[in-house]
Amino acid sequence: MGIREQMVDMGISAVKAARALSKASGSAKQDALLHLADLLESESKAIGEANQLDLDAANERGLDKARVQRLTISEKVLASMIQGCRDVAAMPDPIGEIESMSKRPNGMLVGRMRVPLGVVAMIYESRPNATVDAGILCLKAGNSVILRGGSEAFHSNRCLADLMHQALEMAGLPREAVQVPPTADREAVAEMLKLDKYIDVVIPRGGEGLIRAVTEQATMPVLKHYKGVCHIFADDSCDVPKAVSIIENAKTQYPSGCNALECLLVHKDIAATLLPEVAARLGSGGVRFKACERALPLLGDTAESAEASDWGFEFLDLVMAVKVVDSLDEAIDFIADHGSNHTESILSEKYEHCMRFIREVDASLVVANATTRFNDGAQLGLGAEIGISTSKLHAYGPMGIKELTSAKFVLLGEGHIRE
Amino acid sequence: MGIREQMVDMGISAVKAARALSKASGSAKQDALLHLADLLESESKAIGEANQLDLDAANERGLDKARVQRLTISEKVLASMIQGCRDVAAMPDPIGEIESMSKRPNGMLVGRMRVPLGVVAMIYESRPNATVDAGILCLKAGNSVILRGGSEAFHSNRCLADLMHQALEMAGLPREAVQVPPTADREAVAEMLKLDKYIDVVIPRGGEGLIRAVTEQATMPVLKHYKGVCHIFADDSCDVPKAVSIIENAKTQYPSGCNALECLLVHKDIAATLLPEVAARLGSGGVRFKACERALPLLGDTAESAEASDWGFEFLDLVMAVKVVDSLDEAIDFIADHGSNHTESILSEKYEHCMRFIREVDASLVVANATTRFNDGAQLGLGAEIGISTSKLHAYGPMGIKELTSAKFVLLGEGHIRE
Repeated sequence: MGIREQMVDMGISAVKAARALSKASGSAKQDALLHLADLLESESKAIGEANQLDLDAANERGLDKARVQRLTISEKVLASMIQGCRDVAAMPDPIGEIESMSKRPNGMLVGRMRVPLGVVAMIYESRPNATVDAGILCLKAGNSVILRGGSEAFHSNRCLADLMHQALEMAGLPREAVQVPPTADREAVAEMLKLDKYIDVVIPRGGEGLIRAVTEQATMPVLKHYKGVCHIFADDSCDVPKAVSIIENAKTQYPSGCNALECLLVHKDIAATLLPEVAARLGSGGVRFKACERALPLLGDTAESAEASDWGFEFLDLVMAVKVVDSLDEAIDFIADHGSNHTESILSEKYEHCMRFIREVDASLVVANATTRFNDGAQLGLGAEIGISTSKLHAYGPMGIKELTSAKFVLLGEGHIRE
Repeated sequence: MGIREQMVDMGISAVKAARALSKASGSAKQDALLHLADLLESESKAIGEANQLDLDAANERGLDKARVQRLTISEKVLASMIQGCRDVAAMPDPIGEIESMSKRPNGMLVGRMRVPLGVVAMIYESRPNATVDAGILCLKAGNSVILRGGSEAFHSNRCLADLMHQALEMAGLPREAVQVPPTADREAVAEMLKLDKYIDVVIPRGGEGLIRAVTEQATMPVLKHYKGVCHIFADDSCDVPKAVSIIENAKTQYPSGCNALECLLVHKDIAATLLPEVAARLGSGGVRFKACERALPLLGDTAESAEASDWGFEFLDLVMAVKVVDSLDEAIDFIADHGSNHTESILSEKYEHCMRFIREVDASLVVANATTRFNDGAQLGLGAEIGISTSKLHAYGPMGIKELTSAKFVLLGEGHIRE
């Protein structure tokens, strides 16, 4: 059987499993999640061995250190997977819920019932914990999931998928609800992206290149974010000590995160006060600055002149663009032109400026007086997340279990006809 | 300037207008809608003349009667456009609303603020009233809209768009918020569907061919339904007189509607009672039946044997498929295999059967004991609608103003950083 036929078979059995899963009780899904937590504990040795095969291959091929690290299922990573299963198990079942039913003038009741999306395909890079994260969120939401992780994590992902299959069967649910393509081939991905007849949505996670490639090839809807070019605007009225702490946190707490700060905009009237303090605090932490003409003299030794390409650039590193602006309006316009609709923050003690920024800036999370690093499902109160959407269809911002569902209309009539 | 450049220009100015519109007050948008209602009244002569140009061309080209009728802006159609403007004007502004803000453990407030989608492209067939319907809903939701109606309605649509431009300017809003491509060329549509950089979503309305073509070419998300193959399952416990009325209403009230009944499934134990009455009532109304072997002898003269292709077929005419089934399970499985996720209804006095059908059937509207014809924004209480989505991403069912918006996360902090 060729790749194409294998992928079609996978699609068909995923749809069949999705139908069964959509009818599964909340407690069956909970059982599966708790069994999985137990299996991850009891099979830790097998997981470690599978992971070692991937690590050996990675080292042989000379994969860079950061990627090897992401590939490693350490004790800590495994413990967080196990905790994730138990946390998701404890959450209420979203499926079948009707938020409210309203009565129409003719007496019939109309409401919306939460339903699964159907079949979700995840395409992601090396981290094997994404396999478990995505699997358990899709299961809770009643979706079948096709998990296509990076080829370098092939053995780890196979092992984790096997455990998910066991957990599903222990709970009386179909093992086909979790599928891993039979090969790590790129061809398998290309074929998968043609299966809009079977797959309802594809969620790519990884670098911009992966996401663009998936978006171009996919025949089904794609939930994605390309990049996080996050700005902070420090207004003239900002509280300087608070501002310095927030800027430091946003830039340095996890510089390679998509919600890390990339460009600081500073009001001209506070620049001379704020920027030297920013330079002192962040510069000593190893941050280098790409500064506009007005900011440059205020930032000390680690600053150099920004080039045009530095605005709107995602550094993902201890590098930050800095620009002095004349007004709130200029900051809002600059963000509209150079932002990526991910996370934007204003630091200001002026109520009206905060309100305008919150209202007028178009981003999946708009913040007043806090760090950009809060754009994360757990931080914003969604529980686990499966990614962050920066486009506005279906989901905007972190996607939790609810974003893996839809809602159908239900109508309870008593012989009603349309006049 | 070539078509491509013209369409790119249109995209750029639509984005610019969308930014302005996203900040517009609810009362400015309301003003524009009320001005438009007045202009549609005062300029009825000009509208009639423009429409006459299209009608003359249509008659010259020998367009069929049904299409000429859809193309005609009668007094009644005009009055309903005007009323539509006033109704939408009276609705609350959805933009900027925050449904609730919850407090996170660290004290910061997190909520979701409703925002426009941005730029919406509508592609639709001959009805010129769709031009006004789509225009006013997009305006209310703060979106720019590109309106590409059928080439046979070119003059009518131009005239209506001109009035919308006047209304926008009278309210101090940018006229570029409503755009009509410069030509009725197919090439213009092809170019438009490449503009994912500027257009956030495309909504095609019309026949299955149009919708498939748009979906295949579009680089941006598409909200759509292909077809409405709606079933009614008459359970053994159904109330026969109510059932006959509902079946008649669903099939005959508006047979060319996407929510009209196409296939009746009847439980074997009620078939001999129900089907002769259905035949008597609907047959006398001119309905022909395509029946399975068991149903055929119960349906009288206007019935003929169904072929395999009649199951899952959208007749859009006074033709109905009829099939006898052995159980609720068989009905649910048949609908899963042959339905189009549009509207499905059960007629039953058994509580448990109604509950199972409502829960297990996957359709944008699932009904108990009422006609399928209720799948419509106005009937379900959404107010005006811009189409019905039968796919689950973003919207499932009728799309009203809310479905033309998204929601961004907002965070009100007081110096909060992430630990």
